[in-house]
Amino acid sequence: MSAVDIPAVKEYLLDLQNRICAALEVADGTASFREDSWDREGGGGGRTRVMESGAVIEKGGVNFSHVFGDKLPGSATAHRPELAGRTFQAMGVSLVIHPHNPYVPTSHANVRFFVAEKEGEEPVWWFGGGFDLTPYYGNKEDCRAWHQAAKDACDPFGDDVYARYKKWCDEYFHLKHRDEPRGVGGLFFDDLNELGFEQSFALMQSIGDAFAPAYCPIVEQRKDTPYGERQRDFQLHRRGRYVEFNLVFDRGTLFGLQSGGRTESILMSLPPEVRWGYDWKPEPGTEESELYDVYLKPTEWLEA
Amino acid sequence: MSAVDIPAVKEYLLDLQNRICAALEVADGTASFREDSWDREGGGGGRTRVMESGAVIEKGGVNFSHVFGDKLPGSATAHRPELAGRTFQAMGVSLVIHPHNPYVPTSHANVRFFVAEKEGEEPVWWFGGGFDLTPYYGNKEDCRAWHQAAKDACDPFGDDVYARYKKWCDEYFHLKHRDEPRGVGGLFFDDLNELGFEQSFALMQSIGDAFAPAYCPIVEQRKDTPYGERQRDFQLHRRGRYVEFNLVFDRGTLFGLQSGGRTESILMSLPPEVRWGYDWKPEPGTEESELYDVYLKPTEWLEA
Repeated sequence: MSAVDIPAVKEYLLDLQNRICAALEVADGTASFREDSWDREGGGGGRTRVMESGAVIEKGGVNFSHVFGDKLPGSATAHRPELAGRTFQAMGVSLVIHPHNPYVPTSHANVRFFVAEKEGEEPVWWFGGGFDLTPYYGNKEDCRAWHQAAKDACDPFGDDVYARYKKWCDEYFHLKHRDEPRGVGGLFFDDLNELGFEQSFALMQSIGDAFAPAYCPIVEQRKDTPYGERQRDFQLHRRGRYVEFNLVFDRGTLFGLQSGGRTESILMSLPPEVRWGYDWKPEPGTEESELYDVYLKPTEWLEA
Repeated sequence: MSAVDIPAVKEYLLDLQNRICAALEVADGTASFREDSWDREGGGGGRTRVMESGAVIEKGGVNFSHVFGDKLPGSATAHRPELAGRTFQAMGVSLVIHPHNPYVPTSHANVRFFVAEKEGEEPVWWFGGGFDLTPYYGNKEDCRAWHQAAKDACDPFGDDVYARYKKWCDEYFHLKHRDEPRGVGGLFFDDLNELGFEQSFALMQSIGDAFAPAYCPIVEQRKDTPYGERQRDFQLHRRGRYVEFNLVFDRGTLFGLQSGGRTESILMSLPPEVRWGYDWKPEPGTEESELYDVYLKPTEWLEA
């Protein structure tokens, strides 16, 4: 088994943040990210990058954080007693992009690494992450390209990796109170260590590296689609579902808010503008209802 | 001790919903509530009333619900083992009003009753509820009138009731992740049974009855205040805090969503339109920052 190389993970994540921001700036064409560096009282800090009111991106955030401490909170060790009495480090890159144009999907990606150490014992560690797509007006070509990129990133690591992480993504990004998927999915994984450090790290990198080349061409292809108030209204209502998921269900968001994380960095994932209407739903037979009828169903996009 | 009169509570709540809706229709001047009646699979149902795009009220919901069952969920009896093996009923009226004009505060009120019964044993029961005000542009006169109405409703039931319920409200409607109050408070109470059924029911009625006469005059007085895009933008960003509170902290919302409650009735509390900006905050020295500097601090409004 290869040794756990923490500095290499950190170096990768910082570089990934740089590369993704550069690619998104090119995709936007005019705006650039501004950076806020911050420190965490209990140990560590982060580098938050935000873009607002770009030509294409209405609001986007790409956050790097690295937090550490002497002791995990009781809530963490209750589930994993093997972590008690260990120092820990958690680091990751997390991003959400909300475009102006309702024909450009919202997207989210995250890669993360956790390690808990104790003198004289093997470190306990795992990787997690994934990426997923939330269109307003679905497009099969985009879904296929997105899932093909996901599959290509996973395939070198085993025949069943894509299928497992794709299913995990469908299950995770599900609004239980509406029995509704958040979007058309992608990949989600957690607790990855069974491949050993080197291969697990390589799989996480493969997925992190795949995000921008998968998302930017979709942005490029859809960003000039004409739209009006009707499409904007649909997008704003659908963004309400995004808020509901992130604030009610998303583990990272809730853990961050409850554990005294940096609120503005955590909530930069929320859309810039949102609407809620009582019993809001698209009229049957419209371009809007197609999202529900065709796209918000668990689908094997590579066979569709 | 007086006998528990469940039908009387239900009759009061249905009538209260009618009276509050009638008062709010007068306050709005043009729009009326539409009603959705619904049944709950496990037992019970409700009467949801919603107003959208009124002259004054941008979105408002006044919900009555009465749910019952043979058996409480394990999560409820874990905290209160005396409830195990009992049938239960929960009923209440809950409302949130989001006005168009940023000079009119948002308001929330709720009164509720819970009872768990078992043949041959005394019923276990309690009342809960309260009301609170969330201004965008604070006004001391409104805060004083609001809290005076709260105090007047409580005073017949004991000298310390207002002070206790006012403090409970400040503690409950607090956004921990921002260390920020939701608004200027009012009343919050729960587990009320120590006065015996008759007096506890009377206190809950006193608070329920006080809401509309406290809120409607504030609406009347502020609804014609001129405003522009600047005030609207401030209101929409502040509404983001309202969403954060309701989806991350509000016990009723979370319990409802997790226990398979009727999603549209629970989430009718969400504002019709909302904005989030990264690290958004008002500029120091503005009319907007006054909300934070003066109003979003725990204050004894009757002494201010």
